Amino acid sequence: MTAPQPLTAGRVFEAGGRLAAESARFTGFGWMRGTSGNLSEVVTREPLRLAVTASGLDKGELTASDVAVVDPQGDPVAVEGVPPLVPSAEAGLHARVAALTGAGAVVHVHALNAVVAGHRWPGGVLLRDVETLKGIGRLAHDDEVVIPVIRNSQDMAELGDWFEAAYDPRTPAVIVASHGLYAWGSDLKKARHVTECVEWLLSYALAVG
Amino acid sequence: MTAPQPLTAGRVFEAGGRLAAESARFTGFGWMRGTSGNLSEVVTREPLRLAVTASGLDKGELTASDVAVVDPQGDPVAVEGVPPLVPSAEAGLHARVAALTGAGAVVHVHALNAVVAGHRWPGGVLLRDVETLKGIGRLAHDDEVVIPVIRNSQDMAELGDWFEAAYDPRTPAVIVASHGLYAWGSDLKKARHVTECVEWLLSYALAVG
Amino acid sequence: MTAPQPLTAGRVFEAGGRLAAESARFTGFGWMRGTSGNLSEVVTREPLRLAVTASGLDKGELTASDVAVVDPQGDPVAVEGVPPLVPSAEAGLHARVAALTGAGAVVHVHALNAVVAGHRWPGGVLLRDVETLKGIGRLAHDDEVVIPVIRNSQDMAELGDWFEAAYDPRTPAVIVASHGLYAWGSDLKKARHVTECVEWLLSYALAVG
Amino acid sequence: MTAPQPLTAGRVFEAGGRLAAESARFTGFGWMRGTSGNLSEVVTREPLRLAVTASGLDKGELTASDVAVVDPQGDPVAVEGVPPLVPSAEAGLHARVAALTGAGAVVHVHALNAVVAGHRWPGGVLLRDVETLKGIGRLAHDDEVVIPVIRNSQDMAELGDWFEAAYDPRTPAVIVASHGLYAWGSDLKKARHVTECVEWLLSYALAVG
Repeated sequence: MTAPQPLTAGRVFEAGGRLAAESARFTGFGWMRGTSGNLSEVVTREPLRLAVTASGLDKGELTASDVAVVDPQGDPVAVEGVPPLVPSAEAGLHARVAALTGAGAVVHVHALNAVVAGHRWPGGVLLRDVETLKGIGRLAHDDEVVIPVIRNSQDMAELGDWFEAAYDPRTPAVIVASHGLYAWGSDLKKARHVTECVEWLLSYALAVG
Repeated sequence: MTAPQPLTAGRVFEAGGRLAAESARFTGFGWMRGTSGNLSEVVTREPLRLAVTASGLDKGELTASDVAVVDPQGDPVAVEGVPPLVPSAEAGLHARVAALTGAGAVVHVHALNAVVAGHRWPGGVLLRDVETLKGIGRLAHDDEVVIPVIRNSQDMAELGDWFEAAYDPRTPAVIVASHGLYAWGSDLKKARHVTECVEWLLSYALAVG
Repeated sequence: MTAPQPLTAGRVFEAGGRLAAESARFTGFGWMRGTSGNLSEVVTREPLRLAVTASGLDKGELTASDVAVVDPQGDPVAVEGVPPLVPSAEAGLHARVAALTGAGAVVHVHALNAVVAGHRWPGGVLLRDVETLKGIGRLAHDDEVVIPVIRNSQDMAELGDWFEAAYDPRTPAVIVASHGLYAWGSDLKKARHVTECVEWLLSYALAVG
Repeated sequence: MTAPQPLTAGRVFEAGGRLAAESARFTGFGWMRGTSGNLSEVVTREPLRLAVTASGLDKGELTASDVAVVDPQGDPVAVEGVPPLVPSAEAGLHARVAALTGAGAVVHVHALNAVVAGHRWPGGVLLRDVETLKGIGRLAHDDEVVIPVIRNSQDMAELGDWFEAAYDPRTPAVIVASHGLYAWGSDLKKARHVTECVEWLLSYALAVG
């Protein structure tokens, strides 16, 4: 049994700086148009607390303090020295993903091809025999991979239930239909790599499918 | 009844600096090829005066002083300390949009997919049940959104009339067929976000439609 | 009758600096892959002398001195203080374009959509009723514009003859089939704007045609 | 018979710096998503030793020391002063390409259009009568060029055999189906240019084919 980890403003802002840098990267890819999308990092596991990008801001212009801390329900948690910003409305799903998958970071972006793929294959996107599958922890040969597609909802509890029902522990991504992509990894850099590979795979599937 | 706001060179150049920065951003997106497109900000509401990007310049290279001030007809207005540049020919439509919608900033870009969508759906582009609709102030579910498409004209009064006839107060964008996109918001950053979201939505509509 | 203009190393390198900057821009657009494409500026009109990008270099990495001076046949001309670099093999066509059209600058890029459009419409690309036509000096309404498409050749004299036969003084661009795009303007910035607008128009034609 | 060349840490890190710069460039093109792809340079020819990008790292963030040295089988070789990093699993194929072709540098990227082209033309991609073929050392006219497509494998010896069977000394690139592109040149800059031109040619083939 681990001792509770200290949840300090310093750790929150360190996470915020990383979230800001990755958000700027994804904005450059065109995956966070307007103020869409949000990123999170687990800052403590017990109790589960996530640093998540604040709501309503341009994701290409975030600073380390444009961050909120949330609990497993996505509700704000007060941390001394951290001004209380409104977390993304989707923070509850981030927390659910982190709790269920054990991920240390979660990426949610409105990558166009992910939404197009979700529209084309509402039952899930089948991928098989592509080298880039190794980039999401699967095999390049003879491994049937399905990126689940779940319906969209504004109710994070409902969305979380659908996510949980569709979740395959071997596959670190899910498409929310008519909405965007969720992808995750052990840390934020790994989550970035998974996101990039899934988007590549979905673009490939659309091009040849 | 509000007192008249002072219209100073300083305020005009501050607006010009913001217009230049946003123009450079949209140029980077490929939405202002050649010297196409123009952006404006309302600098005073009563009387209505807009700072609008000057005509004929590369939109990736503007400076804060590459700006003209216009009245509700798009005609130049002299401001002490502001060298008189030629406003964009489309300044009259910017002013009409600002007057009718109450917007604080108007973006006009030649985003390729907007013009392609206007060609494909000359009666308007129907969007429904997409999360990104929230980025333009609409609902992600069960909300029928139509981006109006109006005919192109070189007569800004005529174009303004068509805009007014097609205008739906709930929808902050209109496509001018064979020409480009107009989008607006309460301030320039909001207008940027709306523009980005509309372009994403139109690209999505083309991809799945 | 004008006096002969002095052809100094300084003027050549000034032109070379502008050619390098524009080449880097077009490289960023993906229009000068490998070492493809070349740009030129007229440095003296009588006799006709052009500064043209040197052959075989990466167009994203040019410096002001990566430039050669050529005569109307595209043959190198010695200029004191200018190290003799090999001009692009296509310099002869640049000179022919400058002589025939009166352009002050010529852009030749391997923009993918221009070559695709040339393949799709080998008899010329018809454009009409598009606002962006104003960016190449034509009308937005009721003006039938044809971007000529000529066959490819390694013989610049032959290519020049075909260019001359296809040339319409109202249209500042021509596609060389299976090869790339030539566009021109009164100076290099204007040639850039024309190139950008033509590429946009060809992309639009492909998307809706 | 040449004297053995000295294999120093300095030469390895010089190569590593060049590999890092090119990797960042290709990452910017979207051709090295996640941690995919790898680049190499021959540092000594006798015995054959390659500097190859280290495994599992983000290719947009490499430094000069993120490099491993391998022998013709792709196995790590100790070099004094060079910390032993794990070479890319594909280092064995890089070495095989360098040995067979005499190339001084090898590029392997997951360029989407290359994989799409390999899917569309599993027997090889036929290219003919395109100017950009000159960028890979072929002719712009009447020269039938086939970019070979070989099957994917995780066994570098097997992949190497297939590569050798498909190899045409006139063509400096091969597609590994469902995987990515290999391209090479006398040095790293030339390999970059070949890679760019091949990708352009494959994109063109897909657009018109």
